[in-house]
Amino acid sequence: MHIIMLSGGSGKRLWPLSNEIRSKQFLRVLDNGHGGYESMVQRVYRQIKLEFIDARVVIATSGVQQEQILAELDDTVDIVLEPERRDTFPAIALSCAFLSLERHLPDNEPIVVLPVDVCADQTYFTAVGRIRDAVVSDAADLVLMGIEPSGPSEKFGYILPSVSHEGYAEVAGFEEKPRMERACELIARGAMWNGGVFGFKLGYLMGIARSHVEFSTFGDLRASYGSLRKISFDYEVAEQAASVAVVPYRGSWSDLGTWDALAEEIGQAGLGNSLIAGGDGETVVVNELDVPVVALGTHGLVVAASADGILVSDRRASAGLKTHVDRLAAAKPRFERMRWGTVRVVDRLEGDDADDAETRIITIDAKSSTLPTVHSQHTAVWVVLHGEGAAVVDAKEKPVRPGSVVVIPAGSVHSIRTETGLRLVETIIGEG
Amino acid sequence: MHIIMLSGGSGKRLWPLSNEIRSKQFLRVLDNGHGGYESMVQRVYRQIKLEFIDARVVIATSGVQQEQILAELDDTVDIVLEPERRDTFPAIALSCAFLSLERHLPDNEPIVVLPVDVCADQTYFTAVGRIRDAVVSDAADLVLMGIEPSGPSEKFGYILPSVSHEGYAEVAGFEEKPRMERACELIARGAMWNGGVFGFKLGYLMGIARSHVEFSTFGDLRASYGSLRKISFDYEVAEQAASVAVVPYRGSWSDLGTWDALAEEIGQAGLGNSLIAGGDGETVVVNELDVPVVALGTHGLVVAASADGILVSDRRASAGLKTHVDRLAAAKPRFERMRWGTVRVVDRLEGDDADDAETRIITIDAKSSTLPTVHSQHTAVWVVLHGEGAAVVDAKEKPVRPGSVVVIPAGSVHSIRTETGLRLVETIIGEG
Repeated sequence: MHIIMLSGGSGKRLWPLSNEIRSKQFLRVLDNGHGGYESMVQRVYRQIKLEFIDARVVIATSGVQQEQILAELDDTVDIVLEPERRDTFPAIALSCAFLSLERHLPDNEPIVVLPVDVCADQTYFTAVGRIRDAVVSDAADLVLMGIEPSGPSEKFGYILPSVSHEGYAEVAGFEEKPRMERACELIARGAMWNGGVFGFKLGYLMGIARSHVEFSTFGDLRASYGSLRKISFDYEVAEQAASVAVVPYRGSWSDLGTWDALAEEIGQAGLGNSLIAGGDGETVVVNELDVPVVALGTHGLVVAASADGILVSDRRASAGLKTHVDRLAAAKPRFERMRWGTVRVVDRLEGDDADDAETRIITIDAKSSTLPTVHSQHTAVWVVLHGEGAAVVDAKEKPVRPGSVVVIPAGSVHSIRTETGLRLVETIIGEG
Repeated sequence: MHIIMLSGGSGKRLWPLSNEIRSKQFLRVLDNGHGGYESMVQRVYRQIKLEFIDARVVIATSGVQQEQILAELDDTVDIVLEPERRDTFPAIALSCAFLSLERHLPDNEPIVVLPVDVCADQTYFTAVGRIRDAVVSDAADLVLMGIEPSGPSEKFGYILPSVSHEGYAEVAGFEEKPRMERACELIARGAMWNGGVFGFKLGYLMGIARSHVEFSTFGDLRASYGSLRKISFDYEVAEQAASVAVVPYRGSWSDLGTWDALAEEIGQAGLGNSLIAGGDGETVVVNELDVPVVALGTHGLVVAASADGILVSDRRASAGLKTHVDRLAAAKPRFERMRWGTVRVVDRLEGDDADDAETRIITIDAKSSTLPTVHSQHTAVWVVLHGEGAAVVDAKEKPVRPGSVVVIPAGSVHSIRTETGLRLVETIIGEG
């Protein structure tokens, strides 16, 4: 079972927990069923592995998300880096080229593309298995998942089925985001939402990709990636395909695209250091800071606090968040989860480039190492707070423990590794 | 004009802006009429100086608030340090002993005691002048301010007037916190709220103080301060006095004791980095952090954010805040304003004493110096972010600039001074 997932998103809809680095699929706020928390991408990956024990997953993403994905998943996933962002068709074509030309899968290999930000029942993945089966049995060139609507909605694309078969139906056509009245008509005629799940044989998509650009190696396609048209898979493939089939799924399904939807899924009032008293019991607090959030006598709010800011929103009004976050002064994210730990900015002094300064609390997991880094115009200073390890500056090693101070001149390559786990303060200061 | 003010308060009612060091009177959230902000103590002091250009002010307080007061006021105020907290009568007696025995004021000097946390019109201070005049003219042993009630209330003490004179009335008696029905009766009979303002001649109070404990110097009284009974000035003096007069005040009057009252006085929706959209226009945001607070579609909330935590409260429910803050795990305050600048804790690692660590961003005002300090069991590290100055460690001086690192071994006396103003990261690490 070969699965492609696309990971992107700017993360403004779930500000301040998500930011331009940490998209919503990386937020560890979902119950993992064992008293802990998992992110959407961790949950989807766990559900995939539960359904298909030998599934192989390729994730197409941009460089900025690579560290996040490695922090969330084990390293059995393959990451295909998009040289730039160019919509879903180019990203899927690139991933297919990777599977065909790097992993040498045959042209008749069934492939399923899944969204990375889906929150659904386990039976959703059973439906994914039926999509693969329909592809293998040549039901159609392209097999989609149809989400059985929970009610009329103007937000989704609709798939119109025609002749039914065992486990799937032929597709008569599509209709994008209809008005409410039309949505009701469509549903009455058995239409389903397009869930963004696509099944096809590898050779089918390679043929389409080759009709856009000539390439004989994966590297060729990466090199000419910028010449591919920015177009969605829906427009480029689904609406052009000679034969399309749809496999229905009935069950819970959300992209957790608003704080209200996420609050519903979180299913408890307070995450993190929080105290909720009085009110209507419909307030949800998500607090990533180490100081408390107190909510008194509030009604139907979502309160979210992170190193990037604080949101207090009426749950229904949270759908409009993106517009307001766009109005905030653009600020570099203050929290980032890395493969090896976390970085939290605690103070930022904006100046000329030569005059700025930033202070960060860095945690490094046990048996981990930061990546070698160079600041060309800034001095860095490490003060170790907790744990033991070794700092490496320009290939010279120095053991460190609580209280150790390491000064890293501009231009020096530096990294730090630890067996015990480590916490330090890093200060970066412009050369003045 | 000699004025005594008592400064105390635990600050839980206006959490998280106030904390055990920073009581509500030190919060700089009131409009100073010139586009800036002032604290309650700054406003009261400004109003006193406006009314009485040559007023001399003594503030009685505990050691923990001394730095705060010096940060708020110029150094023409005298500070009388209470050796321990023992209620209002001992604090006023100690302040009077200071004026009599250190400042050598005569026994017939009129003294007025004012609360430090009063928010009132300028005419309140005109009434204070009438209290002084009534004391000088021997209207009574004790002259109080009577606040004309804005309505019946169960929260206040009531003063019952009898015979009226020019500018004051004789007092027939007192009644503490009556039930609502009785409050209505009292108001119908002309009763006023006791505003905690007391005027008397210095010798009168010295006589009462000497009836409690023998002393001939200010130092004597400080030394035996612990033997004075914990009793309020109202019980010990006002209710025992042979003759009492009351001077009425009609105007706005609040101790800003709840977030709702403070929000009303702030008179604008957002203080600090905030964005308020939708809702009923009755939400007030007070944000001391440098990251934004966004409030969407909210109704009648107060939102307050500081280094100590985040409050989201229905404005009416905010009166119950103290009970809930009492339930929070006790935490040392994370923000403190000093005479010379500010200290903000950005990371705290709780361990055994020998194993803990704390990281602070420290700002030092231009032409200022921190106080010499010793950490007996912790190493401190300074990394300078901005500005220039001189670090002094065990009497050795070292010039510092952005990027300078100063390591201070446990037991070393250290301070830093600057002409330009300075910003630094201080890390304190247990000796392990």
